Amino acid sequence: MKIAVMGGDGFVGWPTSLHLSDAGHDVHILDNLSRRWIDTELGVQSLTPMDSIQERTRIWHAETGRRIHFHLIDLARDYELLKNWLAEERPDAIIHFAEQRAAPYSMKSDRHKNYTVNNNVSATHNLLNALTELNLDSHLVHLGTMGVYGYSTVGAAIPEGYLPVGIETTTGDTVSQEILYPSNPGSIYHMTKCLDQLLFQFYAKNDGLRITDLHQGIVWGTHTEQTRRHPQLVNRFDYDGDYGTVLNRFLIQAAIGYPLTVHGTGGQTRAFIHIQDSVRCIEIALNNPPARGARVEIFNQMTETHRVRDLAEMISKMTGAEIAWLPNPRKEAPENDLIVKNEKFLGLGLEPTTLKGGLLEEIVDVAKKFAYRVDRSRVPAVSAWTKDIARTINRDPEGKKLKSVS
Amino acid sequence: MKIAVMGGDGFVGWPTSLHLSDAGHDVHILDNLSRRWIDTELGVQSLTPMDSIQERTRIWHAETGRRIHFHLIDLARDYELLKNWLAEERPDAIIHFAEQRAAPYSMKSDRHKNYTVNNNVSATHNLLNALTELNLDSHLVHLGTMGVYGYSTVGAAIPEGYLPVGIETTTGDTVSQEILYPSNPGSIYHMTKCLDQLLFQFYAKNDGLRITDLHQGIVWGTHTEQTRRHPQLVNRFDYDGDYGTVLNRFLIQAAIGYPLTVHGTGGQTRAFIHIQDSVRCIEIALNNPPARGARVEIFNQMTETHRVRDLAEMISKMTGAEIAWLPNPRKEAPENDLIVKNEKFLGLGLEPTTLKGGLLEEIVDVAKKFAYRVDRSRVPAVSAWTKDIARTINRDPEGKKLKSVS
Ligand SMILES: NC(=O)c1ccc[n+]([C@@H]2O[C@H](COP(=O)([O-])OP(=O)(O)OC[C@H]3O[C@@H](n4cnc5c(N)ncnc54)[C@H](O)[C@@H]3O)[C@@H](O)[C@H]2O)c1
Ligand SMILES: NC(=O)c1ccc[n+]([C@@H]2O[C@H](COP(=O)([O-])OP(=O)(O)OC[C@H]3O[C@@H](n4cnc5c(N)ncnc54)[C@H](O)[C@@H]3O)[C@@H](O)[C@H]2O)c1
Repeated sequence: MKIAVMGGDGFVGWPTSLHLSDAGHDVHILDNLSRRWIDTELGVQSLTPMDSIQERTRIWHAETGRRIHFHLIDLARDYELLKNWLAEERPDAIIHFAEQRAAPYSMKSDRHKNYTVNNNVSATHNLLNALTELNLDSHLVHLGTMGVYGYSTVGAAIPEGYLPVGIETTTGDTVSQEILYPSNPGSIYHMTKCLDQLLFQFYAKNDGLRITDLHQGIVWGTHTEQTRRHPQLVNRFDYDGDYGTVLNRFLIQAAIGYPLTVHGTGGQTRAFIHIQDSVRCIEIALNNPPARGARVEIFNQMTETHRVRDLAEMISKMTGAEIAWLPNPRKEAPENDLIVKNEKFLGLGLEPTTLKGGLLEEIVDVAKKFAYRVDRSRVPAVSAWTKDIARTINRDPEGKKLKSVS
Repeated sequence: MKIAVMGGDGFVGWPTSLHLSDAGHDVHILDNLSRRWIDTELGVQSLTPMDSIQERTRIWHAETGRRIHFHLIDLARDYELLKNWLAEERPDAIIHFAEQRAAPYSMKSDRHKNYTVNNNVSATHNLLNALTELNLDSHLVHLGTMGVYGYSTVGAAIPEGYLPVGIETTTGDTVSQEILYPSNPGSIYHMTKCLDQLLFQFYAKNDGLRITDLHQGIVWGTHTEQTRRHPQLVNRFDYDGDYGTVLNRFLIQAAIGYPLTVHGTGGQTRAFIHIQDSVRCIEIALNNPPARGARVEIFNQMTETHRVRDLAEMISKMTGAEIAWLPNPRKEAPENDLIVKNEKFLGLGLEPTTLKGGLLEEIVDVAKKFAYRVDRSRVPAVSAWTKDIARTINRDPEGKKLKSVS
């Protein structure tokens, strides 16, 4: 297949591109490299030393003889460029990672809120609009998030995208309908993924676009089979308070001797998936497109759920790291349950990589190797969900006064 | 109250501004005048000769001694200007009309789709973002549409915004929750109002903004008490295939001797409200704001429902006009029922102006008076929902070949 990977320079996009190229597909990365610019804005860098995308693809070619093509296109701002590229290349499938994906970054300031909404809505809408305009039947696979569901507190299992509800008619009968699971996003970032869902629903219905939306849990790990092949194929690995995600952050904190940063009671339950499984799930989704005219296909892309404090305790036991109990910068329920259905991927052959698989140690080793690259002042999460909350998170776990970058 | 009327130069915004000014409020219109530019783009004009906003407000002052202030601000593009204006003026309430509001216009081409999504999402989000950033407690009243519900075909009455559903827990119990009514928009324009809903839900929850969303039916009529006071206070009155809405269009068509343009079987049932009632409802909503921290208050702002072909037949009988049965440019169910709850406004004192109230004749009279201003070639609806549909709507009701303006 000819596959366009939008956002293929990112944390999940890069290993996905390698995996699909390795499997023999013709891979084209479209990316505006905004994520690298945000590193510059925040004054942080990936824990792993990451080469330019041009250099990475050159190494991949030298190692394997395969070409991954790179095109500098901003999906949100370069509609005409995007449309022309699609018209010319007519990819069989498109994987859409190209969004601002950090919840804390999206809540930093009014400027960051606007950026996240504009970037994500326009990127997704431009893509749908161009496919429709060109009458292109490419299968669109989008990376959504478990966060569109909000974290349910009613003790019900979260289905894969659709919820059957009974609606009472005027004659007193109850008609059963399947609706998009009601969304309850916890941040501006998560909200943009809910907006995406409505865009997908409309274009699938009105224009028959074939769309798969993957509601992904938090990705952990950094290496996949392909990124291990050469030091310069290494994946990005975020540790800072904005882009670092919970399990990976704990592992890095443990490696550099920084207290594990638990927010609130740590009673939040989250869904997780290893980067290697994430890449495999995307491949499975590519191989199982919905029919033209069908509703949006939705998978829950996660393999296990954990309570944040349990993770912290597990890693503390494994590594001897301390735990720092900090005020929560997010506005969210202090404790929540989370039961998630993921039968669809399991049924299609996914074999989950679990937390117990020895991979945790590998990640701590990677983190130790590059520990010298860490700026400790960038570890705490300083983006607060409201101005009231901001006042409560003014010290880092080492007792220093915090200053927000925004 | 000091009231900001965003989009106050438009069809509903102008009479609302007059009504509120008349009632003694301090009214400020913010508008980018994009609607006048779109008239220029489409080569059409309001049936009624409409003066500039500056001239209109001058006449209003001359007639009544009251001032309505006008500020040229683009809500979607001038975030900093908007924020500064809000910081300085600190309005008690904001009425938000400032969106691209024609479904056919939103479906004209890829450019029009992008414009509608970007304009509407950014206008709404900038407003919410600025209020939050400034910690301003202004009550925000937004004009939404009945179209967010989609046109239900299950025979259930559409509640005012929220639907109670039962969710089955893992222990087999059923927990009842009220969710935002599942949205099923029929056009890009309607979709943007569904996106707005999620933005409102988030900002009400995270930041405690006080928001009222009015899910409005199709507005008919042109005059209100205040617009009748002086010829230069006249309201805009759209007849073209993009901005003209169904009942008003039929009345104008009857007045100029043009066949009434029924799309498909005319089996579509729509919700309606007279412009005078629309203005009153907005005033009622202003007087009944939700509490800080409450969920978004939603009203169904409509007074009656009618099937399109019944309206055509009624007006044909009243005026002798012919009916033209045309292919439907929209992708929608050929027939639908529509039962809508509107107890909330009725309970707060709204006395509906119904179609039988003699106002129909007044509208035909206005239309006859300005019939000389009509460009007949602009009457047919030429924006098709898909390229396949576009091929079927190539002749106007007078048999002439159509050319899309896009
Ligand atoms: N990392 C996770 O834990 C996780 C969890 C759930 C869902 N996701 C989703 O998966 C996707 C990828 O996540 P990631 O961790 O790889 O993020 P990332 O930030 O590392 O990668 C995103 C890439 O998209 C690019 N991009 C952003 N906006 C763009 C635009 N307008 N035009 C072109 N390129 C643009 C960035 O430059 C970056 O290379 C995201 O959509 C994210 O929401 C990630
Ligand atoms: N007319 C109807 O039948 C009807 C029915 C249901 C809902 N509504 C809703 O009511 C509202 C008003 O409708 P209308 O018929 O008066 O529309 P309109 O197009 O006549 O008025 C909208 C006004 O908003 C302004 N505007 C648009 N984008 C703007 C921006 N970015 N910044 C500043 N100003 C901007 C336009 O210049 C125009 O003056 C709309 O939101 C519409 O969706 C209308």
